[in-house]
Amino acid sequence: MKVVLDAMGSDTHPGPELQAAIDAVELWGDPIILSGPKEELEERIRALGGDLDKIEIAHAPEVLTMTDKPAETARKSSTNSMAVGIDLLKKGDADAFVTAGHTGGAMATALFRLGRIRGVKRPGLAPIMPSMGGPFIMLDVGANTDCKPEYLIQFAVMGSVYAKQAFSKSRPRVALLSNGEEPGKGNDLVRETYPLLEQTDLNFIGNVEPKDVYAGAADVVVTDGFAGNVFVKTSEALAKFLSDMIQTEIKSSPVTSLGGLIAKPAFKRVAKLLDPAEYGAIPLIGVNGVVYIGHGRSDSYALLNAIRAARTAIEGGILEATQEAIKSLFTV
Amino acid sequence: MKVVLDAMGSDTHPGPELQAAIDAVELWGDPIILSGPKEELEERIRALGGDLDKIEIAHAPEVLTMTDKPAETARKSSTNSMAVGIDLLKKGDADAFVTAGHTGGAMATALFRLGRIRGVKRPGLAPIMPSMGGPFIMLDVGANTDCKPEYLIQFAVMGSVYAKQAFSKSRPRVALLSNGEEPGKGNDLVRETYPLLEQTDLNFIGNVEPKDVYAGAADVVVTDGFAGNVFVKTSEALAKFLSDMIQTEIKSSPVTSLGGLIAKPAFKRVAKLLDPAEYGAIPLIGVNGVVYIGHGRSDSYALLNAIRAARTAIEGGILEATQEAIKSLFTV
Repeated sequence: MKVVLDAMGSDTHPGPELQAAIDAVELWGDPIILSGPKEELEERIRALGGDLDKIEIAHAPEVLTMTDKPAETARKSSTNSMAVGIDLLKKGDADAFVTAGHTGGAMATALFRLGRIRGVKRPGLAPIMPSMGGPFIMLDVGANTDCKPEYLIQFAVMGSVYAKQAFSKSRPRVALLSNGEEPGKGNDLVRETYPLLEQTDLNFIGNVEPKDVYAGAADVVVTDGFAGNVFVKTSEALAKFLSDMIQTEIKSSPVTSLGGLIAKPAFKRVAKLLDPAEYGAIPLIGVNGVVYIGHGRSDSYALLNAIRAARTAIEGGILEATQEAIKSLFTV
Repeated sequence: MKVVLDAMGSDTHPGPELQAAIDAVELWGDPIILSGPKEELEERIRALGGDLDKIEIAHAPEVLTMTDKPAETARKSSTNSMAVGIDLLKKGDADAFVTAGHTGGAMATALFRLGRIRGVKRPGLAPIMPSMGGPFIMLDVGANTDCKPEYLIQFAVMGSVYAKQAFSKSRPRVALLSNGEEPGKGNDLVRETYPLLEQTDLNFIGNVEPKDVYAGAADVVVTDGFAGNVFVKTSEALAKFLSDMIQTEIKSSPVTSLGGLIAKPAFKRVAKLLDPAEYGAIPLIGVNGVVYIGHGRSDSYALLNAIRAARTAIEGGILEATQEAIKSLFTV
């Protein structure tokens, strides 16, 4: 099994990537391919005591620097570290691609170079998030700002395949994000998608509101990329807002400061549970290859978790399972 | 100045409503009208030692019980406490209506009985919410799940009038909720609305992401009712999720339990800041009258704050200012 890691993705590249590659080789024994400038990377790996027999370099002289037109930019260069890495998947020389680079650039590069799984209308970004009832996945959270019911049906099918594997559940509960639980609630898109989802053989449980999502009501939460993005970004923003407020209030008196200090281990555990690094990276589901896109702020720990997630996806045959599920959707 | 309070709105009506009416009369001296069953309410006010010279009862024998078709239900009855209360506004016998009843029912009743301000396409729900930079208002958060650019322009105009008054700012910063700050980001609706907002004389500052909203980047955040609802409900849900997790983790050991106990005043201050009761209720902006809709769980404190907000709106001539702003939008 071979994972390609974009050496030039994260904000502080290639440090976190090199460390993640070294750790991954030590942990799993399989070789890792790094895409990036060969000479520089080899020199740094040697300096870090890394094993160049197990860490291969796919030479990529450039880094994809993003403008406001990701699709155009991604098409122009085939020698940047994302393009080089993804081309290895296309040629069958690697099984998964992981990057902490620009999300728009990674999506555009993957779409342009790998294409979509046969029958898939739109790939979706599907992060795993925590809830009181365990983790859930949501898709799409930003790849498609405007969606049609058929895209959402496919998100439900692909998300269900993914949740089966990631959560080891035979019949993942699939729900539509809405502004009310009752059937008939929602915007036009939700109301049109609802009866179509009822006709699939998915375990469709109806509409869910954000409170149901965080209570753990569903394993797969289906939504358009705009509302999904609002959900994910609002969650991040509110967590930061709350934590800033709590810190400010705790520090506002010596007594509460002391309390905060004593309770610190509890806060650390909550922070760890919410940390995106625990889940590593977000899979781009629906493209013709296993692709994980991480946060620009990813450290080596987050990247190692992303490699772990990619390995699990490869082992579970996620690509083939998704292909099958989409195919059977079309023959129904 | 006369505010009508729906005596039968909150989940535990009429207790909180009666107490709020008594407190409001004591606080401001102006009479309050309660809409509800006359005999029962008078008896209970007497028992509470309330002043029946100042607390008038507008007899309403029924309570609006909601089905899944708020508009239809709202049209059927004119003798429920919402209809009776709102009719007083229409007749000019009162200046504002406050209810903690069913949101859909209150919106439908207000729309059906008061109608819209001349020129307004769609009224919007516009809650005030806290951020690191002070409060902001967002609209729409649920009255209109599918919107056109012209609705969003009007939300921006009406929200700006409201923010001017509520925050005493001469040029409130107006922004569009989006999945990226750059112009060109967003779904079709956001991308179409952006250039139109640039053409208005509003203080339009562009797109904002949820993190910008909670950092306090804008005074008025404009969005469609579906995405706005996701924003508000996700904020509520995540605050609850986080607070549940923090409590669980703090209670998981005697040491952190002690720390939590000592730091408790800090948590209480944060909870107070986030409590919707502090803002009382959400104005329904764009109908032909001052209407505030509160949470079903409202207590007398929340209702008193809602009455306070309604009084401020009346004093500031919000209805006339909104009428003027919409009119001038049409003559541009």
